[in-house]
Amino acid sequence: MRTARAVRRFRPDPVPDDVVLACLEAATWAPSNANLQPWRFCVLRAPEARVLLGRAYRDGWSAYVDHFGVTADDLVGDGRRARLNRSMKALSDGFADVPVYVLCCVQPQPGESPFDTAASIFPAIQNFSLAARAHGLGTVLTTWYRSVEPELRELVGVPEDWLLAALLPVGYPVGGVGPVRRRPVDSVVGWDAWD
Amino acid sequence: MRTARAVRRFRPDPVPDDVVLACLEAATWAPSNANLQPWRFCVLRAPEARVLLGRAYRDGWSAYVDHFGVTADDLVGDGRRARLNRSMKALSDGFADVPVYVLCCVQPQPGESPFDTAASIFPAIQNFSLAARAHGLGTVLTTWYRSVEPELRELVGVPEDWLLAALLPVGYPVGGVGPVRRRPVDSVVGWDAWD
Repeated sequence: MRTARAVRRFRPDPVPDDVVLACLEAATWAPSNANLQPWRFCVLRAPEARVLLGRAYRDGWSAYVDHFGVTADDLVGDGRRARLNRSMKALSDGFADVPVYVLCCVQPQPGESPFDTAASIFPAIQNFSLAARAHGLGTVLTTWYRSVEPELRELVGVPEDWLLAALLPVGYPVGGVGPVRRRPVDSVVGWDAWD
Repeated sequence: MRTARAVRRFRPDPVPDDVVLACLEAATWAPSNANLQPWRFCVLRAPEARVLLGRAYRDGWSAYVDHFGVTADDLVGDGRRARLNRSMKALSDGFADVPVYVLCCVQPQPGESPFDTAASIFPAIQNFSLAARAHGLGTVLTTWYRSVEPELRELVGVPEDWLLAALLPVGYPVGGVGPVRRRPVDSVVGWDAWD
């Protein structure tokens, strides 16, 4: 968990199907509301998906650049923001060449709030990410596919009553796997009170 | 992950603060949108919280019994439903005596959908559950506190702009820890298509 960082740069090495499936089995071990397991995972590798997702992520990066006013200078240097910017640009540039994508879908239950629906898929996504880390893989939870969501749903054949929760690019990471960067736990815990 | 089952029956043994904190640190290693870490965890042990939560869970069980028409017969036998019913009744009966509760809160970001807000807390909750399992503890994601949510928010001092995401009872489990029960992974995976 401590080194399950967001990975956005992948080596071209293929990821064996049985390794993907092992990570997906770990995903299914997660809890869900009433153990309904209202999830489905689509492993995407086909060229049609790559073209579509490559476009979506270039669009996503452009929108990000516009929204935050990212300049060439913001990509240079050792600061946290510059490193994140470079990492996100690298993901966008290389998105069409990611070895494997896992599209994570969830079926809302009657009368359920969106928040409660999410409670039945994000634990599974976290299990997937941790299992991927254990197999030497990296991934990151992304949603930039939303700009092409109708085309993606049609391409994959997602039923109308299912939601797309996340798209996980998966592959062997370029570079090392350092620890996550987080605030100290003491700063986010209250004992018998808010603070 | 494979044996991180929902635990609803707890031994009375206390849970050391440093073990709770270790599990909470694992929670903070989870990803969140833009790494904002919009979470806060309140560890509850005080009598006022116990009285309130005990009442909430008795109410929750009553509502469950009414909603599903649970009869005394539905608590007897080895069937999956009967075992789940007994386990939920046991949690309700014993809720005021759970060693520790962890109230998991999340702060929605401006313009964020409830689904996206949930994406920034349920991975952390899953990390907590897995770390608890690794420490020999058990827990289960619950929301029956909702019947007393205003009183609970006031008691804990939860700011108005934060959401309650889950209440986790935590303790050493009564009985063994078997594997989770899930559908086969092949039945929930599509390869380059929905099915």
